[in-house]
Amino acid sequence: MGGDMTADGTVRVGVVGTGAMGAAHVENLVRWVPGARVTQIFDVDSERAEVIAAGVGGSAAMTAEALIESTDVDAVLIAAPDPLHEPLTLACIGVGKPTLLEKPIASTVEGGRRVVEAEVAAGRRLVQLGFMRHFDPAYVALRDTVLGGSIGRVRAAHFVHRNPHQHPTHTDESVLFGSMIHEFDCVPWLLDDPLAAVTVFAARAEQGALQDLQVAVFETVGRVVVTIEVFVNARYGYDIHTEIVGTESTASLTPPYGVSVRRDLSATNGATDGVDGRLVTKDGTLRYQDAYRIEVGAWIDSIRSGVPTGPSAWDGHLANLAAFAAIDSLHHGGRVEIPREDRPTLYP
Amino acid sequence: MGGDMTADGTVRVGVVGTGAMGAAHVENLVRWVPGARVTQIFDVDSERAEVIAAGVGGSAAMTAEALIESTDVDAVLIAAPDPLHEPLTLACIGVGKPTLLEKPIASTVEGGRRVVEAEVAAGRRLVQLGFMRHFDPAYVALRDTVLGGSIGRVRAAHFVHRNPHQHPTHTDESVLFGSMIHEFDCVPWLLDDPLAAVTVFAARAEQGALQDLQVAVFETVGRVVVTIEVFVNARYGYDIHTEIVGTESTASLTPPYGVSVRRDLSATNGATDGVDGRLVTKDGTLRYQDAYRIEVGAWIDSIRSGVPTGPSAWDGHLANLAAFAAIDSLHHGGRVEIPREDRPTLYP
Amino acid sequence: MGGDMTADGTVRVGVVGTGAMGAAHVENLVRWVPGARVTQIFDVDSERAEVIAAGVGGSAAMTAEALIESTDVDAVLIAAPDPLHEPLTLACIGVGKPTLLEKPIASTVEGGRRVVEAEVAAGRRLVQLGFMRHFDPAYVALRDTVLGGSIGRVRAAHFVHRNPHQHPTHTDESVLFGSMIHEFDCVPWLLDDPLAAVTVFAARAEQGALQDLQVAVFETVGRVVVTIEVFVNARYGYDIHTEIVGTESTASLTPPYGVSVRRDLSATNGATDGVDGRLVTKDGTLRYQDAYRIEVGAWIDSIRSGVPTGPSAWDGHLANLAAFAAIDSLHHGGRVEIPREDRPTLYP
Amino acid sequence: MGGDMTADGTVRVGVVGTGAMGAAHVENLVRWVPGARVTQIFDVDSERAEVIAAGVGGSAAMTAEALIESTDVDAVLIAAPDPLHEPLTLACIGVGKPTLLEKPIASTVEGGRRVVEAEVAAGRRLVQLGFMRHFDPAYVALRDTVLGGSIGRVRAAHFVHRNPHQHPTHTDESVLFGSMIHEFDCVPWLLDDPLAAVTVFAARAEQGALQDLQVAVFETVGRVVVTIEVFVNARYGYDIHTEIVGTESTASLTPPYGVSVRRDLSATNGATDGVDGRLVTKDGTLRYQDAYRIEVGAWIDSIRSGVPTGPSAWDGHLANLAAFAAIDSLHHGGRVEIPREDRPTLYP
Repeated sequence: MGGDMTADGTVRVGVVGTGAMGAAHVENLVRWVPGARVTQIFDVDSERAEVIAAGVGGSAAMTAEALIESTDVDAVLIAAPDPLHEPLTLACIGVGKPTLLEKPIASTVEGGRRVVEAEVAAGRRLVQLGFMRHFDPAYVALRDTVLGGSIGRVRAAHFVHRNPHQHPTHTDESVLFGSMIHEFDCVPWLLDDPLAAVTVFAARAEQGALQDLQVAVFETVGRVVVTIEVFVNARYGYDIHTEIVGTESTASLTPPYGVSVRRDLSATNGATDGVDGRLVTKDGTLRYQDAYRIEVGAWIDSIRSGVPTGPSAWDGHLANLAAFAAIDSLHHGGRVEIPREDRPTLYP
Repeated sequence: MGGDMTADGTVRVGVVGTGAMGAAHVENLVRWVPGARVTQIFDVDSERAEVIAAGVGGSAAMTAEALIESTDVDAVLIAAPDPLHEPLTLACIGVGKPTLLEKPIASTVEGGRRVVEAEVAAGRRLVQLGFMRHFDPAYVALRDTVLGGSIGRVRAAHFVHRNPHQHPTHTDESVLFGSMIHEFDCVPWLLDDPLAAVTVFAARAEQGALQDLQVAVFETVGRVVVTIEVFVNARYGYDIHTEIVGTESTASLTPPYGVSVRRDLSATNGATDGVDGRLVTKDGTLRYQDAYRIEVGAWIDSIRSGVPTGPSAWDGHLANLAAFAAIDSLHHGGRVEIPREDRPTLYP
Repeated sequence: MGGDMTADGTVRVGVVGTGAMGAAHVENLVRWVPGARVTQIFDVDSERAEVIAAGVGGSAAMTAEALIESTDVDAVLIAAPDPLHEPLTLACIGVGKPTLLEKPIASTVEGGRRVVEAEVAAGRRLVQLGFMRHFDPAYVALRDTVLGGSIGRVRAAHFVHRNPHQHPTHTDESVLFGSMIHEFDCVPWLLDDPLAAVTVFAARAEQGALQDLQVAVFETVGRVVVTIEVFVNARYGYDIHTEIVGTESTASLTPPYGVSVRRDLSATNGATDGVDGRLVTKDGTLRYQDAYRIEVGAWIDSIRSGVPTGPSAWDGHLANLAAFAAIDSLHHGGRVEIPREDRPTLYP
Repeated sequence: MGGDMTADGTVRVGVVGTGAMGAAHVENLVRWVPGARVTQIFDVDSERAEVIAAGVGGSAAMTAEALIESTDVDAVLIAAPDPLHEPLTLACIGVGKPTLLEKPIASTVEGGRRVVEAEVAAGRRLVQLGFMRHFDPAYVALRDTVLGGSIGRVRAAHFVHRNPHQHPTHTDESVLFGSMIHEFDCVPWLLDDPLAAVTVFAARAEQGALQDLQVAVFETVGRVVVTIEVFVNARYGYDIHTEIVGTESTASLTPPYGVSVRRDLSATNGATDGVDGRLVTKDGTLRYQDAYRIEVGAWIDSIRSGVPTGPSAWDGHLANLAAFAAIDSLHHGGRVEIPREDRPTLYP
């Protein structure tokens, strides 16, 4: 058992950032994770931090740094804006506190490398990256199916990643860096095969509009060809598809559990038919709510046991290497090889 | 080869009734059936008959009787209103002409029995009933799957039969007699197991409205339990489902080939989600357009070969026996046994 | 806040019965429910009780009665065999401890009524019935869709309830009483419409075998017609379907989230095709694992808040009334009216 | 009305090549197309030609050339091996006979250009290319949906094209040239947007094996990004998917109509689950049997009316231009622009 907790085994968590993701994490920790308490919360909106803290029996911190250093905090969950990921995580490593860090690991390749180097220097894995798909039961079952061999040797995979509406902060690059980052991470994890190269194709966008729908083709070291569509203004909902194609069969994710309807569409513009299909939610945090809960549960478990289990800083760094290669392809066209770096021994 | 055709083997068809069904049959015969010609057409709307006849190089008949007796007509297709089915078919049998008769065989049990008796007296099968599902490729594949044994012994079946809007002539009884008649016919055909009893349950209807949604439970001689929902105001489309449940597996019809959409529903009343599903047509003749084409093709083939193959007058009579037992159950409640009658040797 | 907990708000739970369900409840309480501890466990297999208790930091009780009366137990979860449900629950009510009782409430109608009467006499709701579908997110969403009105007025509903293999203890009656009990409970809940009558149809069974596949037709007070198939030897998996048919549209449950495959079937007996479809688990506790977790979480919450929220003893009694009417129909045939009893004021 | 038929309007067809495709065309012409007769058949296997000819009341020709020039042949259907497409079609154009030519138009870009030039020189459209998807009802409905505007502006499309087993004659190039040719043709047709560039990615193949699974990315003139997977050893069946992604919604092809099963998979290697899904046929000619029938029907109609309607020699040439650009990409890597050529005025 590790030492990052109180005498009775409770892990006291400080949460930095209470946007949609941060708030969902607080809710999950309090509602579903025995052995955890949320003791401190920091948000630039200090009023919001106070309201949320009051609701869970914690207190609002004056600064993120104060929260990280507080003796009332055993572990830190970082759901702050992307540019703060690197400095906040370095501060956590500096005080030796386990950290759950929302993706991406940093806003630059160098930043991610610095986090890895700091952790290696600390000699101990402290950072878990917030790649929640690793904890989604269907992704885990899909990975088991793929790696279990029943689909034969993998030859291709197809991913679709759609959001209903772009975030105000979305840029041409963040479509790759902020959204497709999940595929940069989960493709090698699902296939147990590192990424070797990426080629990006951007669809026409209106003048001055976001270069929204982008298709990337990944090539893995094992020469699996992977297509990924990211489309952040898909209108109809938050929707994720994955099919892995093997020499013996294919394996896919089914849609999430929910409600299906058969209804007339003729009230809608120009339609004359009815439709028979599943309802698609627009709320991406709903889509992965099980994964988020299991993720924070596993994080607290790993702190209590002292055995890190989730995606590491190294995984975050690898995803960044691929994402920035993709941005290079977006900017300059053509196929870009993803740099290979030696894996530090800290990451087995 | 039979004798119901011209010297060059062409079958000259007279069509009685040019509503949606009759017109579709004319179209299919002319467009898709080599060896058939539509030479005469009768409709109470004589103008409509003339227009359609002109379009296919035929002529309009003055009366149905004249058409049936015409030396220019080798075979008769009857798509007239239900009450005319019996007398017109008896007339066709009287002149020995092959007849394709839309369901039901007659408006009464006795009427159907008279058609059977006339055909038996003629000593030759002349009547094919318009149960087109027997020619639908997916129904045929489903039946092959069921009778082939791979699903084990059949224990249950579930049918849903929905129309977008009721026909103006619909009555509480015709929901059973005109719509569910297809299930009264195709359940014994799909399962190779005759019907033994029927119990009807009618859902609440608004005051004075059609007793629309009705559920029947069939019990077969082999004690398979079959549920059938008929709902003629389902709004969203013409929609048919069938699942057969065996001791080893189940087998179902998949939806028809077509187009699927993922679209936002939020323009429609009160919805906030998107939907991902197949479009459902409201046009029932579209749903079975392949079956109708194959049906008339097989009918012409059977005339040319002299070997009847489709659903017989006896099948039509059995369906009527079941439908009228169901009407009895609707009126008086409870389980009604379906009368068993001896199969004449004309029907093997 | 209620008084059924320790000073720090922790609810100490005693669990009676550690079969598949009981063990799953222990796991969920310990893994996912802050504010609960499992302090005592009883099972007739005392070794099993000790092993499980040791794993969660509790102790094994000598008898169920000792557990119920223990000062170390604030609340009791009963997952014992059906015949013990009534006496154990009466004992819990006797000592005023909140109880989560697996279905059915009792093995007889009278037994269920006695539990209700004891609770009414105690003047306080203590018993929550283990109808977990009330906590399944998709069922809740389906109910919201139905009661929200967007599907119009409900006319019919269709349920399928399949298990891969019968339990050794299954009888002709327990197909209704032990399996279909979930539909007896959840139909009125989903439709907000009590059951009025039931008619049972049993499919042919092999000589001496369980009368397995049974179809029930429920009629509600609002004259909705509901068909339910229960089939406990469906071979291919644990599988649940629900479609609610309204005058404006229908609403269904989609299949659970998971993995889909496209694979060749030609290695299997006689098949020549491939298949494209979702994998179906055979483990029923997997199917509802979210519902079970949310159920015990809500139960602990309701104990801490003092406000009961889940299905009540009265709901359990109503389900029993319907199930025993169904057994009457199975034994004697025909439609059986479900007795209506006055709802005690304890149950609003 | 055109002059390519007998006095009574019958079109006498000569068929060159009676492999699976040629035989299916003969069957469709005879079974389903009034106004057509198959009078002559040529195959290098003269015995096969005689058997098939005898079955349809025609005769076997001694050579393809003799067939083409025969006064007993009004129109020619070419289903011969690819290298013969160009010379046979040039011969047909030389004698001014309407020709239905299976894809590809020729084995080289220059060959296809020569066919176009010969037709232009003849001053009259004589050649219809066998791109049958143009006649598939669901593709037509999909195209209507896309071009009708309800999905908004198209941004991306995804195609999957799988065969169960490679043909013995398959080469790395023919995966593109013989299989993906359908997508090279139908993408611009579905989107009304010509192809501008193609990039090919080949998945790892075993040493010495066919470079089977290939993914191409098309970019259209309108900057739609299109991914296409072709996999000719997919094992489980012949399977085609298409999704078009627009700014307002997406539109897809649903799977073909057929049979679905729920069955146990545990007899198959290593599986423990059941499966719930549609059966997938391995017979590609079954998949498009409606399209083939409608295609030859429309071809005969166009001959009788004198108004060509189907895919033209120019469409065949454009598909070849794209396919050979793709082969260039396969051989040398990277993005290859597809040459643009001026459309002759013969092709509006």
